[in-house]
Amino acid sequence: MPAVNEYIQSNKQRFLDELFEFLRIPSVSTLPEHKQDVARAAQFVSGKLAAAGLENVEVIATAKHPLVYADWLHAPGKPTVLLYGHYDVQPPDPLDEWKSPPFEPTIRDGNVYARGSADDKGQMYMHVKAMEVLRAARGGNLPVNVKFLIEGEEEVGGESIATYVPTNLDKLKCDVALVSDTELFADGVPTLCIGLRGLMYLEIEATGPARDLHSGIYGGAAPNAVYGLIELLAKAKDKDGRIQIPGVYEDVVPPDASEVESWQQLAFSEEDFLRNEVGASTLTGEPDQSVLARIWARPTFEVHGIAGGFTGSGAKTVIPAKATAKVSMRLVPDQNPAKVLEQVQAWVAANTPQGIRTQVRILSANPAVSVNPHDPAIEIAAKAFSDVLGRPTVFIRGGGSIPIVGEFAKYLGVPTVLMGFGLPDDGLHSPNEKYRISNYYQGIETIAHFLDLYGTAGVK
Amino acid sequence: MPAVNEYIQSNKQRFLDELFEFLRIPSVSTLPEHKQDVARAAQFVSGKLAAAGLENVEVIATAKHPLVYADWLHAPGKPTVLLYGHYDVQPPDPLDEWKSPPFEPTIRDGNVYARGSADDKGQMYMHVKAMEVLRAARGGNLPVNVKFLIEGEEEVGGESIATYVPTNLDKLKCDVALVSDTELFADGVPTLCIGLRGLMYLEIEATGPARDLHSGIYGGAAPNAVYGLIELLAKAKDKDGRIQIPGVYEDVVPPDASEVESWQQLAFSEEDFLRNEVGASTLTGEPDQSVLARIWARPTFEVHGIAGGFTGSGAKTVIPAKATAKVSMRLVPDQNPAKVLEQVQAWVAANTPQGIRTQVRILSANPAVSVNPHDPAIEIAAKAFSDVLGRPTVFIRGGGSIPIVGEFAKYLGVPTVLMGFGLPDDGLHSPNEKYRISNYYQGIETIAHFLDLYGTAGVK
Repeated sequence: MPAVNEYIQSNKQRFLDELFEFLRIPSVSTLPEHKQDVARAAQFVSGKLAAAGLENVEVIATAKHPLVYADWLHAPGKPTVLLYGHYDVQPPDPLDEWKSPPFEPTIRDGNVYARGSADDKGQMYMHVKAMEVLRAARGGNLPVNVKFLIEGEEEVGGESIATYVPTNLDKLKCDVALVSDTELFADGVPTLCIGLRGLMYLEIEATGPARDLHSGIYGGAAPNAVYGLIELLAKAKDKDGRIQIPGVYEDVVPPDASEVESWQQLAFSEEDFLRNEVGASTLTGEPDQSVLARIWARPTFEVHGIAGGFTGSGAKTVIPAKATAKVSMRLVPDQNPAKVLEQVQAWVAANTPQGIRTQVRILSANPAVSVNPHDPAIEIAAKAFSDVLGRPTVFIRGGGSIPIVGEFAKYLGVPTVLMGFGLPDDGLHSPNEKYRISNYYQGIETIAHFLDLYGTAGVK
Repeated sequence: MPAVNEYIQSNKQRFLDELFEFLRIPSVSTLPEHKQDVARAAQFVSGKLAAAGLENVEVIATAKHPLVYADWLHAPGKPTVLLYGHYDVQPPDPLDEWKSPPFEPTIRDGNVYARGSADDKGQMYMHVKAMEVLRAARGGNLPVNVKFLIEGEEEVGGESIATYVPTNLDKLKCDVALVSDTELFADGVPTLCIGLRGLMYLEIEATGPARDLHSGIYGGAAPNAVYGLIELLAKAKDKDGRIQIPGVYEDVVPPDASEVESWQQLAFSEEDFLRNEVGASTLTGEPDQSVLARIWARPTFEVHGIAGGFTGSGAKTVIPAKATAKVSMRLVPDQNPAKVLEQVQAWVAANTPQGIRTQVRILSANPAVSVNPHDPAIEIAAKAFSDVLGRPTVFIRGGGSIPIVGEFAKYLGVPTVLMGFGLPDDGLHSPNEKYRISNYYQGIETIAHFLDLYGTAGVK
């Protein structure tokens, strides 16, 4: 759309200046001392939404950090798009590893370096600017109806939005959600994420003797809670990483042939992945699955740590009475968390070593999310992406979880277009987080183009 | 020896008063604020040794707490006995569980309640009083030559005495050592401990990826250091607790038939041991070994804890880059710690899961100690014990380690008579530690009687 491009070109500097202003607000949601900064970021967002012509702008107080809502609903007969993002950021630690201050955005080599530049302020703000651009190009109108819902707790669990969505179904009613909090598979490759693994997080507690015992006096005849847990957990996977919990793979839907084929077209190098990202002596996991399948389409069983016994410096000869493992499972379509939990509980009961009692506690459970790549909204998004970047759009999955996507599907019954413009080396959550400036402008253009095509198609 | 008995009877109150004075000194060796109290306890011991007629009394400064030395060497042609004990005590915590103050000895039901009453002040001081008693009964003479070596670091690792012994071989030359820091197998049962397990303490470190990874992005294809360690450690024992490290049982000398038979005569109840001491749902360990054999005469492999990954509250989805297990093995005769270490290293190398690198670090290693029950000094000790308590002496082992006994064997080439008068419920290291008053007097009498018989036998 030439008018859109022209408007972006003639407002380039201002668009960047506004983003810089946003990035200078240290809206670290996990740190109480930044509570006012988080509130300031919410005000910034609501102000810019109003300035872009959105209506019914609200800063909604919650138990923790505010939600920002806004809408524009003057396209009768056209579909409604829910635009989601978050204005909170991770803490910047370790500070001394930053080459420029985390809250003083600095340009180097075509990138903006700042905490939140990619995750997610830089991406979320593209949505706001797309509104301005579209309205300017269309005499104050938008091609679709839009609703914005922006949160300030994404980095701390997102409780408030998880409560808000199911209790505001009419207000949030829409046809599709749009999220820009992901990345391109590789530089220049238009990428839509159509699957995210779910996550079930558990604690497995083992109890042996009534109290910690001296291993000299009792060693050989008394059960050890740490070792009992080790014996149990070691049975969870075989040496090739196949989960041994009966039934776990029952409902796993393998990616269809076309998806597998599309993965084979991706410029993915196991060698680079091992050397530059994982840094171990070898990759591991199910040998009959490709690496991408292992991280995107296969369930996992991971032990994050074991608390209990003695782990200080030096030597203490204790037979621990109690130990707790932090365990998580990544879930894939169509695994049902409740069913998997039952399978885990049955497996724990059947495999608990003698002398040990075990208890399984569930901390959280979210199912996997998948989006049908043949959904009209996804097909239109793919076309818009290809149009702007000049290459065919690839469909990938993500191994991690974005719980809100599952909530949108569950409560609003809509697919989510996961259209992100980050790059794999952006360093989210790490020092020297960056976002490429050309991706920022390209993102604004792509989002505007997508909404335009989507409105023209009139899909509801 | 009637004269000995008579002397003890007529000095009963004073012997108890002196012990109370000793127990009032809070000589907690691990707490810097008690450093002066520890020094005061050393002075108390040296003063009482001099008062009992010992000569060459020295308080020997060390890097931490003093050693006390004294001797009496006027029995030419008679053997020399080295008497060892310790005057330091464990901290009294938790204080609010004490029924009477830990450093204000209080009599209840024929017991003295105080920190250190059994471990080891009450027992060590019997040796001092035995000197006084014997000299009084023999016109100022002793039946044997004696050397005292008393330390103030037993509860904090005993580094100073471990350095002192090998560098003072001539000074400490003797025929047998006598230690009263153990207990009767049961009330009224004369008991000599003739075996102590050794201890090898290890750290096994596992490294997987180059840095902690996000389990969503990498889970399924990246090795996990905590899980790698779990997989490795689970292979150390089968489900019945048999150690699976090749060669570990090669040099294990089973207790001889007479020892096994003597254990069967002991009034040991597995049921009581499980219910009152261990408190688990069942005892564990090698089913073809008796419980006493498992805790006294069989090697163990124990995991005390695993450091690394995430063990805080809540959920963190990390694939840990590094994890370290605290591992110990109890060793039995004739296992050689250096050989067992090699076996462990070979086993670790052979069983490290793919993607993981492991390293074994040794923190300490002491071999098991065993005393030949047919050694003349042990036979005489057994007779003396039986004479005084009026029942046959039983020979038991201990599952824990008393490293100094190994040092005496290694550097001085002598057996140690482990003749203790504590009771299994004395509560060493716990609140309300106690020592039975009648055992205190009986101990003085038994030690005096042993030295008398040993001098008469003239064994060298």
